[in-house]
Amino acid sequence: MSLSSQPPAAALVFQTLLTQGPLTRAELGRRTGLSSGAVTKVSTPLLADGWITEMGQPAGERQPGRPATLVAVRPERARFIGVKVTADELIGVAADLTATPLATRRTPLGSRDVGTVVRAIARLVARLADGGGGPAVHSVGVTISGDVDGHTGVVRYSPFLDWRGVRLADLVERATGVPTVIDNDVRALTVAEQWFGSGAGLSSFALVTVGAGIGCGISVGGRLVSGAHGVSGEIGHLPVGGALGSAQVCTCGNTGCVEAIASTQAIVDQAREETGDPGLTLAEAVRLAHSGDEAARAVFTRAGRALGLAIASVANLIGPERIIISGEGVASYDLFADQIRRSFTAQAFGTAAECDLVVRPLPFEAWARGGAAVAAQRLFAPAGAGPQSAS
Amino acid sequence: MSLSSQPPAAALVFQTLLTQGPLTRAELGRRTGLSSGAVTKVSTPLLADGWITEMGQPAGERQPGRPATLVAVRPERARFIGVKVTADELIGVAADLTATPLATRRTPLGSRDVGTVVRAIARLVARLADGGGGPAVHSVGVTISGDVDGHTGVVRYSPFLDWRGVRLADLVERATGVPTVIDNDVRALTVAEQWFGSGAGLSSFALVTVGAGIGCGISVGGRLVSGAHGVSGEIGHLPVGGALGSAQVCTCGNTGCVEAIASTQAIVDQAREETGDPGLTLAEAVRLAHSGDEAARAVFTRAGRALGLAIASVANLIGPERIIISGEGVASYDLFADQIRRSFTAQAFGTAAECDLVVRPLPFEAWARGGAAVAAQRLFAPAGAGPQSAS
Ligand SMILES: [Zn+2]
Ligand SMILES: [Zn+2]
Repeated sequence: MSLSSQPPAAALVFQTLLTQGPLTRAELGRRTGLSSGAVTKVSTPLLADGWITEMGQPAGERQPGRPATLVAVRPERARFIGVKVTADELIGVAADLTATPLATRRTPLGSRDVGTVVRAIARLVARLADGGGGPAVHSVGVTISGDVDGHTGVVRYSPFLDWRGVRLADLVERATGVPTVIDNDVRALTVAEQWFGSGAGLSSFALVTVGAGIGCGISVGGRLVSGAHGVSGEIGHLPVGGALGSAQVCTCGNTGCVEAIASTQAIVDQAREETGDPGLTLAEAVRLAHSGDEAARAVFTRAGRALGLAIASVANLIGPERIIISGEGVASYDLFADQIRRSFTAQAFGTAAECDLVVRPLPFEAWARGGAAVAAQRLFAPAGAGPQSAS
Repeated sequence: MSLSSQPPAAALVFQTLLTQGPLTRAELGRRTGLSSGAVTKVSTPLLADGWITEMGQPAGERQPGRPATLVAVRPERARFIGVKVTADELIGVAADLTATPLATRRTPLGSRDVGTVVRAIARLVARLADGGGGPAVHSVGVTISGDVDGHTGVVRYSPFLDWRGVRLADLVERATGVPTVIDNDVRALTVAEQWFGSGAGLSSFALVTVGAGIGCGISVGGRLVSGAHGVSGEIGHLPVGGALGSAQVCTCGNTGCVEAIASTQAIVDQAREETGDPGLTLAEAVRLAHSGDEAARAVFTRAGRALGLAIASVANLIGPERIIISGEGVASYDLFADQIRRSFTAQAFGTAAECDLVVRPLPFEAWARGGAAVAAQRLFAPAGAGPQSAS
């Protein structure tokens, strides 16, 4: 029995248990709006096939006559593998139904050639699938930055791999023998946060990633905003930098883009310019700024202001309940945290400033977890509930 | 029988007919995903109570043995009144179920005092309700710019009326004796476009209004983005103006906001500054620009560039299928249309530039129609399908 062949009510029960469980049947009925008969009807095959389980009574509610059994998802029922492709390595994770990592592996990439990368992914998947002795791997989720079409499985454009129109899902599926989905890395991370992280249960939230690029995933009403033409969450190219007197030219050709001020490369470039040291590294720029060097500090301050203005723009347009700030760049967050908050508060309009700003460091492994979450989501999300209703 | 007491399937059938009808029962089943038995079950009370009607066979499909009847909504079944409150007048419209105007009236406002405005609304509603001899007025929808809470019916803040915390829905309901809902004017216009205008049937769209203020309504997946804290669509306060070298201070206290460059008042202020004529009016600025005056033209060009960057920001973050540009300012659209498109195209990232930009002049009466659409929506939209699930 496949979970996705179940009626929509089954998917609803399963999703509710996945994100809010364990629950009593009565509470499950209340939260899903289903009658107790309907809950029983859809639960029976899910129980029989081991997707959910019964767990005894909730604490403090034990009654001699009529014990209220708790129903919960069995995370170990299915296994997924998530792979994040970066410019020079693969990060892989084996995870359960709730995208909780069971094992992690990294592999350096010798070349960015499509064939080489696909073979390296297949080897990584095979190694991660081997261990543990759990259930067979249900599916693989590969994530990558750039313009990725999750519906057709095509990487339309990956700037850092210099790929265009690569049918990556098909290639990995053929090389591994396991059903494969692909998605943009920031979107996948947003899916993971929406189902199993700091976005769970929120009416809306955004995830902003700061690092080599400046990305953003947006979730409204439990759905990822995916963009009618494939582009969404491109916070890196909001032209807010002009307000800060920046004339840095962005990779997209415009001036004033957030990415041209606050990405890792932009910070290094500006620090080299400000300090007059053309060989300065990011680590050295961070060290200089920490030691109080005015020129280096100014670069981080400007980056923080640009990020604050961009995050305020998201709040003004969408008004999310929470904005999570994450990514490798958060490691030097102390250098621009104040400026992010200050610019955000000044530019957020009215009650948009009440948006909850949260900083959450994410290790690189968490990015791979995004791939596992996207793969798991295809299993349980009914068509239309997510950005990937077709595969 | 009230339509809102019907099961969700009835609301789904009714909405589908409202926006896509007339349809055959078979096609209705296909589009709603309901079985033919379910379609018949929910249609029967809607037919009996006159909400929908049967219309004979579709052209070209007439078969001697088995005529395929078309089912359609009866727009005349219910009547709504929409009222837009501006700084110096009320604009009212009586409309049918599809928010099609049946009659329009305008009333000057002598004062912005709450009591005076409420009494003027009540008089306007009474006059609009009088005519026609149709069904009794089902409900009234009042729209107003500013921070309006559609759920509680409270105008939290209206800058141009200088109102704070006014329970307008209750006040109008008591004065008219008719159930009343209120909403922000741009959101209401977006609801009208979503259900009955250029947004119908789109997966996502945004409506940008250019005039006294610069507003934006956003619809994703058939739902209005309403903002977790009440604010959304505040495109007027995106800080893109710095990229254009603008240091105009906005009403919100920041510099670089779109509204500080492209609102009617901002255009007049800048034109006065550029021409050195402190008494210049908007009409004169438009005339000067049309006559080729460089200084006046530069003001409109800058406004167009700011609007183009702001619209590109919406496209980059949300990726809507279409962006509709409207509002009073569109009357001088020829003066900045080129710049809007040029800046939009340059700043839109990748395929976000494929977003369909549409300019649609909206007469002031159309704003009042927004109120009628919001009122009508409460009748047929199931809880949660729109921003106003409670009233
Ligand atoms: Zn850019
Ligand atoms: Zn402003």
